[in-house]
Parts: sequence; C-alpha cells; structure tokens
Amino acid sequence: MTNKHIHLNVFVPTTGHHEASWLYSGSQPERLTDVDYYREIAAIAERGKFDSLFLADQLAIGRSVKHVAQGKLEPLTLLSALAGSTSHIGLIATASTTYSEPYNLARQFASLDHISGGRAGWNIVTSWSAEAAGNFGLDQRNSHTDRYRRATEYVEVVRKLWDSWEDDARVLDRTLGIYADTARIHAIGHQGEAFRVRGPLDIPRSPQGNPVLVQAGSSDEGRGFAARYAEAIFTAQQDLGEAQGFYADVKRRALAFGRDPDGIKILPGLSPILGSTEAEARALEEELDDLTLPVVGLKHLSQRFDGFDFSVFPLDERIPIEAFPRPETVQGAQSRSQVILNIVEREKPTLRQLLRRLAGGRGHKVLAGTPKAVADHIQLWVEQRAADGFNIMPAFMPGGLSAFVDEVVPILQARGLFRRDYTGRSLREHYGLTRPESRYARSA
Amino acid sequence: MTNKHIHLNVFVPTTGHHEASWLYSGSQPERLTDVDYYREIAAIAERGKFDSLFLADQLAIGRSVKHVAQGKLEPLTLLSALAGSTSHIGLIATASTTYSEPYNLARQFASLDHISGGRAGWNIVTSWSAEAAGNFGLDQRNSHTDRYRRATEYVEVVRKLWDSWEDDARVLDRTLGIYADTARIHAIGHQGEAFRVRGPLDIPRSPQGNPVLVQAGSSDEGRGFAARYAEAIFTAQQDLGEAQGFYADVKRRALAFGRDPDGIKILPGLSPILGSTEAEARALEEELDDLTLPVVGLKHLSQRFDGFDFSVFPLDERIPIEAFPRPETVQGAQSRSQVILNIVEREKPTLRQLLRRLAGGRGHKVLAGTPKAVADHIQLWVEQRAADGFNIMPAFMPGGLSAFVDEVVPILQARGLFRRDYTGRSLREHYGLTRPESRYARSA
Ligand SMILES: Cc1cc2nc3c(=O)[nH]c(=O)nc-3n(C[C@H](O)[C@H](O)[C@H](O)COP(=O)(O)O)c2cc1C
Ligand SMILES: Cc1cc2nc3c(=O)[nH]c(=O)nc-3n(C[C@H](O)[C@H](O)[C@H](O)COP(=O)(O)O)c2cc1C
Repeated sequence: MTNKHIHLNVFVPTTGHHEASWLYSGSQPERLTDVDYYREIAAIAERGKFDSLFLADQLAIGRSVKHVAQGKLEPLTLLSALAGSTSHIGLIATASTTYSEPYNLARQFASLDHISGGRAGWNIVTSWSAEAAGNFGLDQRNSHTDRYRRATEYVEVVRKLWDSWEDDARVLDRTLGIYADTARIHAIGHQGEAFRVRGPLDIPRSPQGNPVLVQAGSSDEGRGFAARYAEAIFTAQQDLGEAQGFYADVKRRALAFGRDPDGIKILPGLSPILGSTEAEARALEEELDDLTLPVVGLKHLSQRFDGFDFSVFPLDERIPIEAFPRPETVQGAQSRSQVILNIVEREKPTLRQLLRRLAGGRGHKVLAGTPKAVADHIQLWVEQRAADGFNIMPAFMPGGLSAFVDEVVPILQARGLFRRDYTGRSLREHYGLTRPESRYARSA
Repeated sequence: MTNKHIHLNVFVPTTGHHEASWLYSGSQPERLTDVDYYREIAAIAERGKFDSLFLADQLAIGRSVKHVAQGKLEPLTLLSALAGSTSHIGLIATASTTYSEPYNLARQFASLDHISGGRAGWNIVTSWSAEAAGNFGLDQRNSHTDRYRRATEYVEVVRKLWDSWEDDARVLDRTLGIYADTARIHAIGHQGEAFRVRGPLDIPRSPQGNPVLVQAGSSDEGRGFAARYAEAIFTAQQDLGEAQGFYADVKRRALAFGRDPDGIKILPGLSPILGSTEAEARALEEELDDLTLPVVGLKHLSQRFDGFDFSVFPLDERIPIEAFPRPETVQGAQSRSQVILNIVEREKPTLRQLLRRLAGGRGHKVLAGTPKAVADHIQLWVEQRAADGFNIMPAFMPGGLSAFVDEVVPILQARGLFRRDYTGRSLREHYGLTRPESRYARSA
C-alpha cells in the first residue's frame, strides 16, 4: 500500500499500438477519420478517470501505408472537437517546434485551453520523422542538436506569448469606456536567434495560464530540455532498473534548474494485453504478433535508425550488435534506438524475433497478463520510483482501452492508488501542477 | 418574385460589427473567450438556416485594445468545437497564406472538413494587418503584390495536398493485408518559387474533396485571385451601381479562367440595424453611433490607409479628397481604401461625420430600417445582379443576429427567396457548388 497517487494518460493511436492492430478483428480501421470514433475513445477514458488523452503527430504519412493503418485527424482540431463531448479529461496535442511558427501555435493552444475550460496540454516535439522535412521545403531533416536548440527558443517565445495578457487585463468598464487595461497587456519584444516576435498574443490568458507542457525527449539533449520545461514526460522504458535510472536522472536535472521535482510527472509507456488468465493474454499477444508482416517491421526498424537497411540480414539469424548504427549518430530518435539496442543486447533475438518483439510497442513495454498482473506492474514501478504513472498504449482500439478501464482501473482504485473520481476540472489539477502566474504580473 | 435562391453567411464578430458595440447594453463583452457564446451564435444562425458562419482573423491585436473589444478565440480550433454543437451550417475560418505553411493549413482544414462532415470553408487572406508582420519576424508587411504572388502558389499547393489521397484510396482489405492502395496516394512533388512540398497529405481526402474556398480580395490583384480560385467572395459595397460593376467584373474574369460564373457566389457585407419602424431603427443606429469615440475611429481610419495620420485634421471640417493617400499606393487593404474614398467623394462628410459613417461597417453597407426594408434591399441587390446573397454583419451580438433571423429571414422565406430548411448536409450543397474530383484520379 502507498499513498502515492498515480497518473494515467491514454496514448490514442490509429487502430491500436500494435503494428498489426488494423488486421485484428477487434479494431475499427474504417473509422480513422470519423470524429465519433475518437469521441467514443475519449468517453471510455473519461469513464476510467484518466488524467488525459494524447494524440501523436508525425506531419507525414509513414512509408508503409500499404500495410499499416494511417491517416487520422489533425490533433488540435480533433481535440477542440473532443472538448465538447468531454468534461474533465485533459487533452494533449502533439505539435512540432521545427515546422511551425510560435505565434500560430501559442494561440491555437491558448484557444484549446479556453474551449476546454483549462484542459489543454502540448506535447512538444522536434519531429523525428525524416519524411516530414520534405513537406516543409527541406531536403533533409535538421540535426538533432539544431532541432533542440530551436525548440528551446520556441518554447520561450510561446510561454511569453501565453503570459502577455495578465489574468485581469480585461477591465470591461462600460462607464469609463475602458475595455482592457493596456498596462496589463504586454508586447513581448522577443529577439532571438531563430525568432523575432513582437506580441502580445491576440487571445487573453487562458484558464490554466499556460497549457501543460509535455515532452518525450530521452536523449541527453532531450532530457535537458524536458528537465527545464516539461511538466509531464512520456518515455519508452523496458526495464525497471533503467526506468529508475531515467526517473532519478530527470528529477535531479529538474532540481538543478531550480524546479520542484514533483512538478514533473514521468509516464513510461505501457501496452497492456489483457486476458482473464496469463495463458489467455499470451494467446492474444501471439494472435496479434502472428498478424505482423516482416516487410512492415523492417521499414519501422529502419526508420528508428535513420533509414539503415536491415533487409540485407537473414530473418532467422541474430544480427551482431556491431552491425547497428551507433545511437549517438542517429539524428531521428536517438534515445529510442538505444532502447532497441538494449533489447538486442539483453535478449539476443534473431531479426525475425526482434521485429515481433517491437511490433507491439515500438520499444515501449508490452505486458501480456491478467488485470492483476498489470496492476501489480504499475504499482511496483510507481513505488520503486521508476514512474509517476503510465502512458497507456492499448494494443487495439477501442476494446483494448475499455478492457483496461473495466478491469485494471478498479484494482488500482481499490488499492487506493488511483482516483475514484475527478477532484478538479483542469489538467493541471489532475496532475497536481500549480498554475503559473504571468511573468509580467506586477507585484501587488 | 424570382426563383433565384440567395445565400446568407453570418460574419461572427467579437461583440458586434459596430465599433462601439461592446459599450451597448445588448452586447456581451465578457463572453469573448467563452465557447458557449459562439455555440449560442451558431445555434441562432442554424435556426435561421444560414449557409455558413465565418470567423475573421488578424493574427494580432489592433491598436485600440483599450477601447475596442478584442481577443476572441482562434478560428480553426473554435470551428472544430462548433462542429459538434451544430449539424448543418457551414464553418468558414480565415487563415493567412502569408504567415503559415501550406502543409499545416491543408491538414487542419481537411481535418475540420472530416470533423464537421463536409462543412469546412477557408477564407483565404494575405493578412493586411501591419501588426501581424511583427509577430512573424518581419519588420514590415510584405508588399500587396508579393503577398498575392505567394498566396497563388500557396493555394495551388494546398489543393494538390487535398487531392493527394484519391477518394477510394483506403482499401481496408484485411484478407490481403492491404490497408491502402498506394497507387491512389500521390506525392505532389511541388517545386515552386516559395514552396517545395513533397506530400502526400497525412489525412485521407475529406468529405467535400476540397473545403470551400472563400476570398475577399477586391483590388485588381485580389479580383484576379478570387476569379481564379474563390467559390464565395466577401466584398464591401456601398452602392448598387458599384456592386453591380464588381459583380459583373468578377463573373467575367471567372469565365475568362474557364470557370462557370455560377460557381462563384458574391456576398457583399450588410450590417442591418432593425427596428419595428424606420424611426426606431434610426434611433438605435444613433444610440450606437453616439457611443463611438473619435480616438478609436481615427485609429481605424489610419489603419485603412497604412498608418496615415488623420488626427492632424480638425474634426468638424471636411477633408479634401486630395489629402488622402491614393488607394493604389496602399499596401494593406487597397480596395477598402477606395470604398472609403468613394464615400468621401459622394457624401462630402466632415472628419467627424466620416468616422461615424464608418463606425458601423468599416466601409460595409449599414442599413437601419424595418425588417421589410432590409428584405427589400436584399431582394433588390440579388435581382439586380449585384449579389448572390449577403454576408450579414450584425451590429451587436447575439441580439442583432437573432433579430435578423426572427424578423428578416421569414420575409425572405415567404417571398421564396431563401430556403425554409436545409436540403443538403455539406457547405458545397448549401452554396450549390460541385464537389471537385481529385486531380490525380485515374479515368475509369
Ligand atoms: C510516447 C511518445 C510519443 C511520441 N510522440 C511523438 C510524436 O507524436 N511526434 C514526434 O515527432 N515525436 C514523438 N515522439 C518522439 C519524441 O519527441 C522524441 O523525439 C523521442 O522520444 C526521442 O527522444 P530524443 O529526441 O531526445 O532522442 C514521441 C515519443 C514518445 C516516447
Ligand atoms: C468581409 C471581409 C472579411 C475579411 N476578413 C479578413 C480577415 O479576417 N483577415 C485579413 O487579413 N483580411 C480580411 N479581409 C481583407 C481581405 O482579405 C482583403 O485584403 C481586402 O478585402 C482587400 O482586398 P485587396 O487585398 O484585394 O485589396 C476581409 C475582407 C472582407 C471584405
């Protein structure tokens, strides 16, 4: 037993996080552009009292659209729609600092925060996809380091814009004819390396002051960035010890930035595959894995290593670890390539086994088991300071999510680990985060 | 009597289109960031069977936030929210070609079109506001000509992206394991002066194929652009003869581009101020005009003429027409400055009178009168080929809109001029526009 409350986010995929989920009868591939599909998912998650739901975004279709379900809706518009069909759950949209302008992004998130009554979150990404670059006039992706440098300035600009109207700037005095107190609306006058932005924003300060900042960087640069800005962190962790190391490192780095380590919630990914017995769960996992195609797995693995071609290796032999590109040279998703190499080192799989191993969670933890086993895992990792909660990644939708909500959540609630009902209205309240004051607010 | 059906769009303002509307007791300035305010407005317009509602966008706050209600929500997120509380009305968002990337814009509109079941429209603007430039790294606005040149290439890119998935690209064949037919998903390979975009879009083709293209250019360049691309046109017209000239010119230009002139609906702005008698309507107009402040009017007038300072002129004297900057030198809103000069020439107002004259509609037609008089005006302009319908600009909200819906719409319906109920579901159907086939579709 512990008094620590855990946090749950659902990572809303296309048909499911399993690569072959669209081929599984429990998924609904025909509904990817149907807003009611997402409304249904949001309703299930809200019934499960989840802190938030989250939409990823790649700004390009992947290379295997022939075999992999793709083409969902754009996150900010979709979450604005979901705000109206939900009342409490947080709404986290991914948006890129590499391929957009901070003024446009700041106001769309501020607007979503108003529309949802304080439930908006921004998953800050630098866009690891090489395909995205070609949609924005670049022959190739900028380097990992350059992307994080731009991201840092970008976030500074966005936060200034969110603060540019103080909370009480609107005076609305009809007698005096004063709509707003211009002393409480601030030009930000940002002049930096990548951006020059005058401001103020064209939208008054939003309910949360600043929408919640989420990030998923796990490389050295990524952790530094997250420790400085993130209020929630998504991460791929396979192993308790490694996850504890990541957890301790990020909290320590946050402290070094003068932040309260409790102000960053660390949420490793977890893809549960549930069965009423362990055998049943494993059978379901097998069924899903049997639907995978090596050609798809090879393309995905290749993407994790900047396009390196693994198809030259025989499927049923082990690949020597030296044959992989070194993670520190990877310009896409540095840390994820490391997670994969750790698996290779630990488990020494054949190429075919490795592809199956990654089909469920792309490097995130997949756990096939009973609801109790999944709840035990969650409890253990939180108690052992490897996590503040989890980023739940259902293998198929919506059934994988509703099984978790109906079978695992009640166990967590019974153990006193998870809320039985929402106690606040804003995403900040769910995550136990303070509401920032505007940096421009005059001292009283 | 005529068989011609008219089209009605409501231009949703902050507190109203009258500059001083927020000071009027019938407006609700405290609700500008409240999504329910817009839901209420959308419900009124849908009750009135309007074709569409429209949100403008400046990408900056204006200079007179002390005295003018500003700071509403961002159009694309707001309309995505309104899609859920409405079922038929078209949803038109303004978005700038000057300060955004076509890939980002294309997918947000495609997403809105999916979310709304085919009700999205894009008001294409080049952003005339000088303030906006400073929020996007520019010291000053690009020239009128440069903005339209970029806009032309931008729209080409967006339309290619919208077409990049053919309608039937998703095959969803679980037996063969084929999710999509890659022969029907097309890289667009755009290489132009301002943009290089590979594509395809990351969202399947939307219900309307292409969201409806709306534009409000009225200068020579603007008309050329509109005649080539626009399916609906907003325009400011004071005078029947001038409006007829504009109407004929745009339809002729459309024909020259090989387009069906009926495929462009021309919607002049109209701000009705209603009373049960003409005297009552005029009294309401006076009441609103009396709330104006010359300091606000001067700032607005100055904005129409690229910052030219009118405050040096005595308020109660006529300004000689030669004192105004010449419209063709104006880099912001060329055509609107011409509309204002025409008023000066025709009516020879003092500066104070001119400011009052512009307070209601900023150059758009303001009509204070009985519901019958307003209906007569609408009928006359449509019959006289000066308009295909109107862009209704209520002086104050929501009361100005509900008065129009309750008092003017029934007259138009009784005269057989306007629909009694929706006959279609998409914005294209309301406006009688065909659904474009993907340019990449293979002939059968
Ligand atoms: C759960 C999760 C979701 C992510 N979603 C996205 C996404 O939607 N778009 C994206 O470009 N990157 C996404 N990423 C990648 C991260 O932003 C980051 O690039 C990655 O975790 C590697 O970290 P690094 O950049 O520090 O090497 C995600 C990562 C995780 C763990
Ligand atoms: C009803 C109406 C609404 C408009 N809304 C916007 C807007 O939201 N944002 C913007 O930058 N320009 C807006 N404009 C300006 C037009 O895009 C255009 O710049 C203006 O009509 C002048 O035409 P011109 O650019 O061809 O001179 C609007 C114009 C009209 C008539």
